[in-house]
Amino acid sequence: MDKILRVDMSRLEARAEPLPPEYERFGGRALIARILLNEVSPECEPLGPHNKLIFAPGLLGGTNVSSANRLSVGGKSPLTGGVKEANAGGNGARDIARLGYKAVIVEGKPADSRLYILYLAHGRVELIPADDWRGMGTYATSTRAKERWGEGCSVISIGPAGEMLMRGAGIVITGHEEQVSRLAARGGLGALMGSKGLKAVVLDSSGAPALPLADPELFRKASSAFAKALLDNPRTGRTGSMHLYGTSGILKIVNEIGTLPTRSFREGSFEKAAEISGENLRETVLRRGGKIGTPCMPGCVIACCNEFVDEGGQTIVATLQYETLGLLGSNLGLGSLDDVARLNRMCNDLGLDSIETGAALGVAAEAGLARFGDVESFLALLREVAAGSPLGRVIGNGAVTTGRVYGVLRVPAVKGQAIPAYDPRSLKGNGVTYATSPQGADHTAGNAFGARNEVDPLAVEGQCAVSLKLQLGAAMLDSTGLCLFARPPVYSDPQLMVDMINGRYGWGWTVQDLEEFNKSVLRMELEFNRLAGFTKADDRLPEYMLEEPLPPHNSVFDVPASEMDAIFSGL
Amino acid sequence: MDKILRVDMSRLEARAEPLPPEYERFGGRALIARILLNEVSPECEPLGPHNKLIFAPGLLGGTNVSSANRLSVGGKSPLTGGVKEANAGGNGARDIARLGYKAVIVEGKPADSRLYILYLAHGRVELIPADDWRGMGTYATSTRAKERWGEGCSVISIGPAGEMLMRGAGIVITGHEEQVSRLAARGGLGALMGSKGLKAVVLDSSGAPALPLADPELFRKASSAFAKALLDNPRTGRTGSMHLYGTSGILKIVNEIGTLPTRSFREGSFEKAAEISGENLRETVLRRGGKIGTPCMPGCVIACCNEFVDEGGQTIVATLQYETLGLLGSNLGLGSLDDVARLNRMCNDLGLDSIETGAALGVAAEAGLARFGDVESFLALLREVAAGSPLGRVIGNGAVTTGRVYGVLRVPAVKGQAIPAYDPRSLKGNGVTYATSPQGADHTAGNAFGARNEVDPLAVEGQCAVSLKLQLGAAMLDSTGLCLFARPPVYSDPQLMVDMINGRYGWGWTVQDLEEFNKSVLRMELEFNRLAGFTKADDRLPEYMLEEPLPPHNSVFDVPASEMDAIFSGL
Repeated sequence: MDKILRVDMSRLEARAEPLPPEYERFGGRALIARILLNEVSPECEPLGPHNKLIFAPGLLGGTNVSSANRLSVGGKSPLTGGVKEANAGGNGARDIARLGYKAVIVEGKPADSRLYILYLAHGRVELIPADDWRGMGTYATSTRAKERWGEGCSVISIGPAGEMLMRGAGIVITGHEEQVSRLAARGGLGALMGSKGLKAVVLDSSGAPALPLADPELFRKASSAFAKALLDNPRTGRTGSMHLYGTSGILKIVNEIGTLPTRSFREGSFEKAAEISGENLRETVLRRGGKIGTPCMPGCVIACCNEFVDEGGQTIVATLQYETLGLLGSNLGLGSLDDVARLNRMCNDLGLDSIETGAALGVAAEAGLARFGDVESFLALLREVAAGSPLGRVIGNGAVTTGRVYGVLRVPAVKGQAIPAYDPRSLKGNGVTYATSPQGADHTAGNAFGARNEVDPLAVEGQCAVSLKLQLGAAMLDSTGLCLFARPPVYSDPQLMVDMINGRYGWGWTVQDLEEFNKSVLRMELEFNRLAGFTKADDRLPEYMLEEPLPPHNSVFDVPASEMDAIFSGL
Repeated sequence: MDKILRVDMSRLEARAEPLPPEYERFGGRALIARILLNEVSPECEPLGPHNKLIFAPGLLGGTNVSSANRLSVGGKSPLTGGVKEANAGGNGARDIARLGYKAVIVEGKPADSRLYILYLAHGRVELIPADDWRGMGTYATSTRAKERWGEGCSVISIGPAGEMLMRGAGIVITGHEEQVSRLAARGGLGALMGSKGLKAVVLDSSGAPALPLADPELFRKASSAFAKALLDNPRTGRTGSMHLYGTSGILKIVNEIGTLPTRSFREGSFEKAAEISGENLRETVLRRGGKIGTPCMPGCVIACCNEFVDEGGQTIVATLQYETLGLLGSNLGLGSLDDVARLNRMCNDLGLDSIETGAALGVAAEAGLARFGDVESFLALLREVAAGSPLGRVIGNGAVTTGRVYGVLRVPAVKGQAIPAYDPRSLKGNGVTYATSPQGADHTAGNAFGARNEVDPLAVEGQCAVSLKLQLGAAMLDSTGLCLFARPPVYSDPQLMVDMINGRYGWGWTVQDLEEFNKSVLRMELEFNRLAGFTKADDRLPEYMLEEPLPPHNSVFDVPASEMDAIFSGL
């Protein structure tokens, strides 16, 4: 990882260059923020030639540290207009790291509107015309690429949504075995990739040398302790909810505490929650002969994924996740795993963020374009997206555009990005994160669901402190490549993370250095957003969430703006 | 004008209240800015209950000063999200002023989604249910209102576009005789009126007492001198271009200097400019038996309007204006007055801003949804707007939304509002105004076309100084109710304006006081926008205008951002 790959789509040239020293101590989300600040005008048109699309493994990417191979993807967001990092599991980070790239930076824009595939293997870099791949769904794209370049390669692709520059489009990354649809979903990065004329990046890291370790003993000791801690943890271990039920394990509790988005955020609990719960998901999958408890990347000891199959045992989607069950399930009044899975598969194939699209479909239902509880009405809207019809393009551009076009004011979004599956009126810490995160509304930026024993989710006080702590933690996870699920050991013992980093790089970091690093990530992102024109006025939840009580607690979001405005004052 | 009418659409109550002293010395645009700062949260949802729709005659409204009865309409803009004032001729300002109202402030929002008409006459204020007016075009609305309330009343209405909360919707005001479609067009104020459930305001000022004059002699002397100066001026007098050709008199020169938007701002001159010129307009109208040189409001000595009729002498539109000829003509590749007039009539009837809609149609053509030069393809798109189809709603929401939905990056807009009919690459002073005006891209905020003898339109230097001077002048005109056409006498002799104000109110203003007043207007607007979240990053032209050379001069917009960022530093 001592080089950067620069892909100039204007000249259709790709060349490796030595890693600039100022990028050396960054990775993943942190590196994206650094590159954006150094190289991209915060005022640029996100889909124009001056924006850059960046793929960056985290600091621990490419190693055998459990759960540490999430791939960060970033750029100036076509959805929010601000800094953007979205990350996904799968094999993309491992392969980019093993090929020796600290980051792949895609620049410029083809003069024509042709499509290309970037093929990267050990000692090979090729840009291949791919016009005949146009319009292909991501499933077919991944399959075709693997047929052509080998089963062992990884495929990072966009679907028709990204090609059509829809700002709800994400980037799809293949992973371990049946896990072919891991999404770097948020912020419209699929549209950014589409604007670069890039249909796919195909990676083959076979034959690449292992990554060097500065202190192999320290590294092995720390990473083993980390893996053991994960396995010993009652939540991430083999008998833990995360392994048994995956992300959907929380749905029942989210519903119980009244924060499960239901019928476009009109209610916080759903009468059919049990039917889309992690428990029912596990039971259904096992009964039908699908898989439960598989990893999305090799070597992950948590192994939280599922392969959701239909009654006949055919895969519909892998993995069916909590946010999708919330946004495409309860949020649309749908209490059937099969309904959600069908919608999810279409989103994956189109290359659409299921959160953004679920929220947009909810807004569409508010506008009378579909009916809550009627899956066919929502499938019909996704078929419009596939067809690129006017209505489909509206939906594909996300919740805010859908609300704008139809005059719907109940749009669950911050900084243009849809709110995930925790209603901030009854989980107010998440409200603070949604409002203040430089990423826009994003649960992965600092999810207070896990901190509800620290602070009452309905209380006003203490939410900013909790959110800040979680936002700093998330910055660390996203910059090292770690999955959110793998946080318990490094949150309780940051030295473990420091040792893994020092073992890998020999930087001699202390816990304080790590904490400073985490802060620097938020500082860089806030600076980029400031230069892009964001102000405190953008750090607000939608007006209706401050005024419309959410059943069953009939709570509104009432953390004072003045408190939120001060959240980063100590950075 | 010693009272304010507050119309509470939540409670369906309207009540007059004494004029608050702090509003006393404001009028029109200035009063709107003051009310917004005092009463409306800059962070509010523009179409929600906390925004206010304000109708405010200028300081000279209701008097017999020539050309001084433009009606300012304002609120937080649904299109830009910032401060908004748009004004129009016609009889609205005269009637509101004569009924004694300094402003009509519409607040709240009906709990149901019913429509209402506000009827104001001497001693009468009524809110009348108007659900059976839903979906009516503005022509039919005005006609029906006059049938019901008398030919002498004025009608301020929205069309289907405003009812459907389209952010390209304006507000239509009836005027003198055949001038039934004067638009306070910009910034989506029609959507704001629609969000209040207000289909129309009907005004009957008959029987109302004349407005008091503090110093009748001074007033009469100054207003007579002003009218005489207008008549003596070679441009506004009876042999002047403004009277003979109206606003369209400039089209030929705009084309000659290469700044006429052509085919979605791809070129600055149009091969069929002569056919849509003021000269041909005059000749055509006179030949067909239409009218030329009529006023939009009684008593205007300039009388710049036309009644454009078809070959059979039937009115198509009155008045056909320059900006419309640019945006719905050359911008769409249409070189036929009849084509433009047909599109214009549809816009008027739907209640759509012809600038915003023309720009949106140009973007739509870029997206392949219509063909430059093919009027039927554009009429078809306007029929989609009328039908409220997905595509129609996209177009009706303006250029930025159309570009966003279709992934078109060449969108001529600033702060979300479409650029009028002077391409800023070859009239750079207007580029500065578009970029920096708190109103968003708006030629009436400071049009450098008239200042091209002061500074070369293609030069980089001097544009900010010219723009600032013009923006201050425009603030004065918009706050006193004066038409832009009536500016020469008061620009060359500000004492004339001071005397008219002192004659009316007895404030003892000096020219310095007036200049301070003008500055205060911009200061208030900038402050509202700052609180709404605007920054220097919003004071930018679209990226492509900085890079794509505009024929025939092959110029780009290259006034440095740093210069523009300092434009208001002396305020």
